[in-house]
Amino acid sequence: MRPALRLHALAACIALACPAFAAEKATTIPAKAVEAATALRDKAMADNTGYEFVSGLTTEVGPRLAGSAADKRGVEWTVAKFKAMGFDKVYTEKVSYPLWERRSEHAAIVAPYPQNLFVTALGYSAGTPAGGLTADVVAFDTLDALKAADPATVKGKIVYVSTHMQQQKDGHDYGMGSATRTRGPVLAAKMGAVGYLLRSAGTDPHSRTPHTGVTGFTKPEDAIPAGALSLPDADQLERVLKEGKPVTIKLDLDVGFKGTYEGENVIAEVTGRKKPNEVVAIGGHLDSWDLGTGAIDDGAGVAIAAAAAKLIKDMPLRPDRTIRVIAFANEEMGLWGGRAYAEAHAKDVAKFQLGTESDFGAGRIWRMTASVKPGARGAIEQIAKVIEPIGVAYDPNKPGGGGSDLSQMHAKGMAALSLTQDGTDYFDYHHNANDTLDKIDPKALAQNVAVYATFAYMAAQADGNFGSAPDAFKGDGAHD
Amino acid sequence: MRPALRLHALAACIALACPAFAAEKATTIPAKAVEAATALRDKAMADNTGYEFVSGLTTEVGPRLAGSAADKRGVEWTVAKFKAMGFDKVYTEKVSYPLWERRSEHAAIVAPYPQNLFVTALGYSAGTPAGGLTADVVAFDTLDALKAADPATVKGKIVYVSTHMQQQKDGHDYGMGSATRTRGPVLAAKMGAVGYLLRSAGTDPHSRTPHTGVTGFTKPEDAIPAGALSLPDADQLERVLKEGKPVTIKLDLDVGFKGTYEGENVIAEVTGRKKPNEVVAIGGHLDSWDLGTGAIDDGAGVAIAAAAAKLIKDMPLRPDRTIRVIAFANEEMGLWGGRAYAEAHAKDVAKFQLGTESDFGAGRIWRMTASVKPGARGAIEQIAKVIEPIGVAYDPNKPGGGGSDLSQMHAKGMAALSLTQDGTDYFDYHHNANDTLDKIDPKALAQNVAVYATFAYMAAQADGNFGSAPDAFKGDGAHD
Repeated sequence: MRPALRLHALAACIALACPAFAAEKATTIPAKAVEAATALRDKAMADNTGYEFVSGLTTEVGPRLAGSAADKRGVEWTVAKFKAMGFDKVYTEKVSYPLWERRSEHAAIVAPYPQNLFVTALGYSAGTPAGGLTADVVAFDTLDALKAADPATVKGKIVYVSTHMQQQKDGHDYGMGSATRTRGPVLAAKMGAVGYLLRSAGTDPHSRTPHTGVTGFTKPEDAIPAGALSLPDADQLERVLKEGKPVTIKLDLDVGFKGTYEGENVIAEVTGRKKPNEVVAIGGHLDSWDLGTGAIDDGAGVAIAAAAAKLIKDMPLRPDRTIRVIAFANEEMGLWGGRAYAEAHAKDVAKFQLGTESDFGAGRIWRMTASVKPGARGAIEQIAKVIEPIGVAYDPNKPGGGGSDLSQMHAKGMAALSLTQDGTDYFDYHHNANDTLDKIDPKALAQNVAVYATFAYMAAQADGNFGSAPDAFKGDGAHD
Repeated sequence: MRPALRLHALAACIALACPAFAAEKATTIPAKAVEAATALRDKAMADNTGYEFVSGLTTEVGPRLAGSAADKRGVEWTVAKFKAMGFDKVYTEKVSYPLWERRSEHAAIVAPYPQNLFVTALGYSAGTPAGGLTADVVAFDTLDALKAADPATVKGKIVYVSTHMQQQKDGHDYGMGSATRTRGPVLAAKMGAVGYLLRSAGTDPHSRTPHTGVTGFTKPEDAIPAGALSLPDADQLERVLKEGKPVTIKLDLDVGFKGTYEGENVIAEVTGRKKPNEVVAIGGHLDSWDLGTGAIDDGAGVAIAAAAAKLIKDMPLRPDRTIRVIAFANEEMGLWGGRAYAEAHAKDVAKFQLGTESDFGAGRIWRMTASVKPGARGAIEQIAKVIEPIGVAYDPNKPGGGGSDLSQMHAKGMAALSLTQDGTDYFDYHHNANDTLDKIDPKALAQNVAVYATFAYMAAQADGNFGSAPDAFKGDGAHD
């Protein structure tokens, strides 16, 4: 939360007698619930449900590109799995989005040194004409350099932008990498480029696996062919460019928009015993890119949420409030599942006790932050105390954003956590063919499940709420 | 050398007054040459010629599959480069071999869980019929288990063999891995299998890069479609197989034999000042598999030999004997260049002072072994003393085999070294798409160049020979 905005919100609340900031009773978690959560945490740390879930999903379904036949099988698999896990309710909600297909993709240096390049098309890229597109390359070190360029130098060319990301625990270089991937193609198209390539937004310099991901194109008529080169291929192209001769590339991307698809968010619930209409929302996204099997992005996220809810369901008594697991549709091409969910449920936002989504791999959670009302900070500190022994530090000075799809509910006013995972190697595998089950450490995954189970149970048992209300957290800085 | 064979050879020599074992003067290296070699070593350690060579070859030519247009460009590039480096002679020698082409390759699990698998066809594999080949899988843990199987269980099936290799400094698991790749398909074909897949002969469990390599098929009519799965894909298939349901795979390999090709060994020489017809032979192979750019296999080998010879050429005086650099054609599909070379030059084997080839990547050399006459052991020890400070230990108890192609000249009787590189990560990248320039550490490459330059110069300056003679080293155990 930004100081200036906090004061502004506080002033508005005082004027309107806003309940979140009134002198009401602070939210607390009863001692008995803290005790039960501690036992739940320890059980979860030794439990394999999450790993079995993600192993099953990625093995029996595999890659799940939004709108593909495999995506549909993924929905069916998850519905069946949620039912087999014994949840109280299992249902789906429709999510409509543009269908985009990848059929084949090739790139090659034509001159001066003919050779193939490992490329992948980006989401919402246009296809090339049949037989491919051949053009000279104009290269830029950064997106800013492209922005500053004279459009005449770009017109008719394939633009290449080389952004270098480094490994980091919080993966912050992805801000720059994803901007180069999403905004770069749109900018290049506006400047008259006929194609766009970037050095993949990834961090493994030794792997020939290009990283896909969505562009900012929203209409087929605005899109140009856009792809990413693997990092060794980007190095290769850069070595060739460095010689100063004109470099010609042929792109052959058989991809593109194909009408509209109706997918589904898949939802499972442990129904609350006392306040069934009040909901702790947790989840991940069920779709994945098609190059890997979507293990760390985001089979792990769905598995963490599902396993946490299952462990809560297996307790002697149902929790006071409902635990809702949401496996979102088509996060990858623009939070389609999350936005549809928020649209449909915004009117009930005050019923969302607390929520967050897991979508940053399967590394251990090391930090919790929260966007809650001041009167619920004590309850957050109670949660922090239970998860501190399993490696999670609470930072009270940062907002909690709710994760990728649930950020949309947070934007509507849902109180939210961020449970930050160790993403040091996340961008080695993110959106590329190497996103497979072997990247998940079952023990690290169990720690995630333990954190989710603990917080979700404690929030469900709290005396009081965390401040969810329409627009309650506007300007908290979570997604600036 | 095996003890029994050693006695046998000795007995034969005594009877025939074999010069190698007679009481002739021991071979030694003059003090002045040792001094010059020490300075040469130090210069080479700080020299970048080798790295520049392999960077140029892999960037300006890229992959060089034997018989491909790129292979031809590789020959032209190397001839031009050798000339630009100022060697005294640059020439080529013809090498004829069956042409095998890779056009496209796909594999997928059809049932029970449809999904693509990352596959690469193996050298000399047959293509599948148009539209692909679909069959059930029968799996074996080892090649021995396949050997022991009832052919009735294999007939009409796709055989899958899962051999697990581990990283090792000397890469000895490759014996098992390459047997599964070369002998497995031949055995499976004889048993009536319609296709063959193996878990790649590689050591990076996290990379979706299947490892290609040659099979033992020698005639198109004996070949069946054969491929390798990446290790994560092999894991995936094994998880599916473990469930016990029938597993159906579709293989679509558009590959195959296509007549005969005439390639070239590319040769450069620093002509000896005193004994130009006596030759120290060093080299690597110029062809590579087509998935990577052939940096560690074996652009590095050619670069090491070429740079070593260049450094010797740049000395104030030409060496006493000739230094010959051989960039062999088509090593990958069965030592075609090496065998052609040995056939052509066997009659002159006694003129080959000493030789060895670099073909195990670009890691530092840590061990030297030698197959030389007893009277040349002192000279080998002199060489060992000069290269010991840069990390090479001399093991007098093992034979020296001469490397891959030059093993064929050693088999004819050429005295040979083995200069063993650190291959700990070699089989992470060997024969797969990740064999690219970034895998080469310029400093480690320079150490290789230093070792080659040092030994080649000292051998060229030796008083006496190392025992090369027709069949002089038969049964030394180098290639048992």
